[in-house]
Amino acid sequence: MSQPQHGVSLSSIYQARRRIAGQAVRTPLIRSHALCERFDAEILLKLETLQPTGAFKLRGATNMIAALIELHGRDALAAGVTTASTGNHGRAVAYAAAGLGVPATICLSRLVPANKAAAIEALGAEVLRVGESQDEAFGEVERLVRERGMTLIPPFDDPLIAAGQGTIGLELMEDAPDLDRVIVGLSGGGLLGGIGVAVKAIRPEARVTGVSLSHGAAMWESLRAGRPVQVEEVESLADSLGGGIGFDNRCTFSLVREVMDDHYQVSEPAIARAMVDILDHEKLLVEGAAAVGLAAIAEHGLDVRGQRVALILSGNGVALEALDRARQQAAR
Amino acid sequence: MSQPQHGVSLSSIYQARRRIAGQAVRTPLIRSHALCERFDAEILLKLETLQPTGAFKLRGATNMIAALIELHGRDALAAGVTTASTGNHGRAVAYAAAGLGVPATICLSRLVPANKAAAIEALGAEVLRVGESQDEAFGEVERLVRERGMTLIPPFDDPLIAAGQGTIGLELMEDAPDLDRVIVGLSGGGLLGGIGVAVKAIRPEARVTGVSLSHGAAMWESLRAGRPVQVEEVESLADSLGGGIGFDNRCTFSLVREVMDDHYQVSEPAIARAMVDILDHEKLLVEGAAAVGLAAIAEHGLDVRGQRVALILSGNGVALEALDRARQQAAR
Repeated sequence: MSQPQHGVSLSSIYQARRRIAGQAVRTPLIRSHALCERFDAEILLKLETLQPTGAFKLRGATNMIAALIELHGRDALAAGVTTASTGNHGRAVAYAAAGLGVPATICLSRLVPANKAAAIEALGAEVLRVGESQDEAFGEVERLVRERGMTLIPPFDDPLIAAGQGTIGLELMEDAPDLDRVIVGLSGGGLLGGIGVAVKAIRPEARVTGVSLSHGAAMWESLRAGRPVQVEEVESLADSLGGGIGFDNRCTFSLVREVMDDHYQVSEPAIARAMVDILDHEKLLVEGAAAVGLAAIAEHGLDVRGQRVALILSGNGVALEALDRARQQAAR
Repeated sequence: MSQPQHGVSLSSIYQARRRIAGQAVRTPLIRSHALCERFDAEILLKLETLQPTGAFKLRGATNMIAALIELHGRDALAAGVTTASTGNHGRAVAYAAAGLGVPATICLSRLVPANKAAAIEALGAEVLRVGESQDEAFGEVERLVRERGMTLIPPFDDPLIAAGQGTIGLELMEDAPDLDRVIVGLSGGGLLGGIGVAVKAIRPEARVTGVSLSHGAAMWESLRAGRPVQVEEVESLADSLGGGIGFDNRCTFSLVREVMDDHYQVSEPAIARAMVDILDHEKLLVEGAAAVGLAAIAEHGLDVRGQRVALILSGNGVALEALDRARQQAAR
């Protein structure tokens, strides 16, 4: 079998699984009774919120740092790893680096909520606040790489990152072998791309559905344009889905094009209602990005009747204030 | 080894584990980073909230119904099983009975929140609303047993129920073999008693701490009196911990006396703050009864420094309105 251009394969995902064992958790897949009744379907929730850092990002970050240690030795990472992140990826890199004995510096835009920055510092990483967008924070990361010899752990656009997230796909195929569909939040594409590779390799007939924001969705616009384009960042309950995909995207753009079957955009009120529904019925407080799968089914009336559908509850990086905002929006 | 008077042994807990496999879930034990930092300890949370019915009660109910089928055959249960319950046990009996192909009738006092009653009906059981207290609801259960030949599945006071809950203790000992202490909400005593038997059999030096309400705590008063006594039921955020222990208690009173090392009472404001902390930091919405372990550490300043302590997040049977009440109380 030839290696695909994006560099992510079932084999690289199995390698990732070996590397992340013991650092990232094999999360439960639970049946939502409320959603099964509501949609007359078998709705399964993958609880990435139970990762030690509260989000799936730990899988990719752990896989990449561990793979670099395997490939180049620990000394090659002596200057440390660095990244820019809207929060979950930064926390993941901080946690993974600490677990693997590597220093970490995380650059955050000033728009990132304070609670997310504090959580990263508590994990032992240095936090640098720079700029008003993820792109500006990334400028600082590039400087650290150039001038201080740090190693970039990108938030999504790397085969090792996507392969790490793809371990979720393996677990889905083991826990729900007759899955009909998986619905995944889509931003940079590491999560959807990785899961898609695993699912399509094991069960090609399972549908992979992406869900993006209705505004500021770089991947959505890029897919329409046929090449990576930049969009303006907007505030959202699903702030983890903000940010660009990079003009020089080398992995996830082609990956998403290959594995995704269909793609929906969801509005803020739909995200808000989905967050409140998940709290009310599943008693789980999830961030907006983790609620977009449910939001898509509800807002677009996706026909899931009689199907076995997995939703990825991708993370719980959300403060109570954001919950209150969501409840106000949901009540409108 | 002689059989203890209360009839619960490590062996009966292992039998329970065999019976409940596939119906009740082996729940994750997660490390709470926020609580570890706050108390300078290793604080582990046992997520019984992830049981399909949202509470640990499923273990005991499943064990008892499955054991009765084993012992007497399925035909002996043709008239169905019945119980009275503040909610979680009723849901557990309904779910377990449905899974095992047995009809179920659940009697509830009119004080039980409407959302809990609806959840039981959704599981296919018949719900009867009777009286203003758990004791009155129990009167109806006795009538159903006497006049219709139904089989009582008691909420706590039975060796099979306690053994089912005790499977939590086995899982704790496997996932945290060097556990120093487990802190358990204490009402009827099935949960604490079952866990206590497993923990003391495997690791006698581990401390078993019970936590009861500061008002209306029947087990607290009974232990002080040296015999089961009745107390007045009061409203609480931890309504699952309400209810009597029965004048003719035959199992859990002696069980709790045998296995519990220390015992605390917690106030409503402390329960409210603990609920909010668990939501804020762990992103889990739990019922008051599931928060009493944290409430006890915080309110009584329990010295847990350097220790490995497990808290049982026993259930999530809580509506958003109760969360709002808790947040108001916690802010005072």
